[in-house]
Amino acid sequence: VSDVRVELGDRSYDIVIGAGTLDEAPALLTRHQVGRRIFLASDPCVYELYGSDLEERLCRDGREVVHLLIPEGEKHKTLETVENLYTYLVAQRADRHSTLVAVGGGVTGDVGGFVAATYQRGMPFVQVPTTLLAQVDSSVGGKTGVNHKLAKNLIGAFHQPALVIVDTQTLASLPERQYQSGLYEVAKYGLIYDADFFRFFVDNLQAIIQRDPAVLEPMISRCCEIKAAVISIDEREQGLRQILNFGHTLGHALEAAVEYAGVTHGEAIAYGMLASLRLSRAMGLLDEATVDEVSAALLDIGSLPAAAGIPFGRLSDAMEHDKKRRDGHSHFVLLTEIGATLIQDDVDLALVAEAWQSAVVQAETATR
Amino acid sequence: VSDVRVELGDRSYDIVIGAGTLDEAPALLTRHQVGRRIFLASDPCVYELYGSDLEERLCRDGREVVHLLIPEGEKHKTLETVENLYTYLVAQRADRHSTLVAVGGGVTGDVGGFVAATYQRGMPFVQVPTTLLAQVDSSVGGKTGVNHKLAKNLIGAFHQPALVIVDTQTLASLPERQYQSGLYEVAKYGLIYDADFFRFFVDNLQAIIQRDPAVLEPMISRCCEIKAAVISIDEREQGLRQILNFGHTLGHALEAAVEYAGVTHGEAIAYGMLASLRLSRAMGLLDEATVDEVSAALLDIGSLPAAAGIPFGRLSDAMEHDKKRRDGHSHFVLLTEIGATLIQDDVDLALVAEAWQSAVVQAETATR
Repeated sequence: VSDVRVELGDRSYDIVIGAGTLDEAPALLTRHQVGRRIFLASDPCVYELYGSDLEERLCRDGREVVHLLIPEGEKHKTLETVENLYTYLVAQRADRHSTLVAVGGGVTGDVGGFVAATYQRGMPFVQVPTTLLAQVDSSVGGKTGVNHKLAKNLIGAFHQPALVIVDTQTLASLPERQYQSGLYEVAKYGLIYDADFFRFFVDNLQAIIQRDPAVLEPMISRCCEIKAAVISIDEREQGLRQILNFGHTLGHALEAAVEYAGVTHGEAIAYGMLASLRLSRAMGLLDEATVDEVSAALLDIGSLPAAAGIPFGRLSDAMEHDKKRRDGHSHFVLLTEIGATLIQDDVDLALVAEAWQSAVVQAETATR
Repeated sequence: VSDVRVELGDRSYDIVIGAGTLDEAPALLTRHQVGRRIFLASDPCVYELYGSDLEERLCRDGREVVHLLIPEGEKHKTLETVENLYTYLVAQRADRHSTLVAVGGGVTGDVGGFVAATYQRGMPFVQVPTTLLAQVDSSVGGKTGVNHKLAKNLIGAFHQPALVIVDTQTLASLPERQYQSGLYEVAKYGLIYDADFFRFFVDNLQAIIQRDPAVLEPMISRCCEIKAAVISIDEREQGLRQILNFGHTLGHALEAAVEYAGVTHGEAIAYGMLASLRLSRAMGLLDEATVDEVSAALLDIGSLPAAAGIPFGRLSDAMEHDKKRRDGHSHFVLLTEIGATLIQDDVDLALVAEAWQSAVVQAETATR
């Protein structure tokens, strides 16, 4: 079991990572001073797989547990779902000393976290991410929120959890495509921050793809360490935290352009990274050999859904709406070498279009 | 002009208090690093009185200002109003570097603050409170939120403003009853924290009631200083901040029992304080002379609406739903002398009922 500390002053917390950590949940909650009343939020599928066992274990430990089901899928990540949860919490007389435990993927964590952030101006919150993407990314860092009909994640708050429990055994039940999607974010951590970790990733890719327990814990731990280091310096994305958005300016634009259908978040980020590599090259920041090496590694993770039919104009429109824009500029995270980034605000849109086209062609070719 | 600093590390901010400070708003915003794009939120009445002038002044100073109207009154302090504001902000392409400036009373500040706390996970926020209650209480301390159909202020977030501008001249247009209601909270600061300030309040009560400009600035400044001192120590109401709830356990219960109709927040708090004084006496914490002296001072502020028709049982029911309860206990802030408090969790409900009845009779007698 690995323990990664997120240092944020009086909002510091631990991420506990290992195989079977959920079995130790009662002791972990006690050690981290989590109170007796627990509201366990989960989607019906994850509740069935892991939530009900956890509920039983916590009850046997003498806690009072009530579960709340959050309907599955991005389309339920709305203020309406949040409002239903408030009503349920009031009816159950939850107070600000009750703890909300979110068990599931990104949607459950984001919605549950937003409810925890805003119910009675904030209640303690524990994350139990069960997808790879949530384990290495969304459960760490305190971003919570829901979608607005006009923009994704538009409504939200920063609310750091009191504890994150990652049980790598939950990955066994994760569908192949979702697991692969998480691996693109794993690769991202190496690319933006840690060349050695990128080598580890490339060297162990077959074992990683086969979900070999021996590599899962060190892999996820390193991702969490990197994310923890970044957000400890820049909790609210004023500066350094932007590097975590490598591939995300175009990735988010792609997701918006296809209206979040047919491409997962991880796949969209993969496209965004492929294009950003070429953009870095076009701007003279990165050498050709590195572009080729990294692109090949990303394409080795698995095949990407076709994106050739999407006109670049739809992506550039979507970028205009991105909430990370400042004074009308989209910023791009570029690579100068493996493990090192540069943030650029004024990138020529023609270069971006060109980089995008090559990335699309490259993904297409690799898939054939 | 007085400047009160709220010390909260990297969330510290200034409260600027004086007659005519709104005329200096452009310079104040510049000095406090507020950006160029401003969303000015106000209710239609306050916008007419002060908002449109401020908007014009900021535009003349070269800022881009868009105003949003928030419908007046507690019944619009809902998630629905918040959602409408999100939609408007998206349509106007507000980003997380735009600033939301709330001009008005408590509802405008609470709703505007919650939108600022949650739009794109937080945008900068400036408070321009125009009621006495907002100037001495709700605009300072970062509490924001809206009501849920089952409970007041149930949904909310802590979001500290970047600046608070108090223009005492705006009090000239405040209806008598609203002004009086604010004075009960002013008296509270003396009672819980500063015996000298309570003397100042009693000695100058006639000038205060007549809104003499010479007393308004020092009076409001001292309230803000006390609130600032308390929240600097306990931003999130884990401990000390609870003393600000003197009179509020019963006050909130009264408001809930009458469904927020017929009694203002300040008047409810006045009743709560009268009862808490008698409860403090009944528990042997406070001497009779002080109870009489303080009660007389509170009743001198003005007459209170009758509360004799409300059975105590409805108040005790409401207390059960209070979000400040912990493990099923309502806590009471009691007085040990003028300027000193004691927080008690396990108060005998029979004593509370008795103290309540005497307070009601006393208010009734004073009004006749």
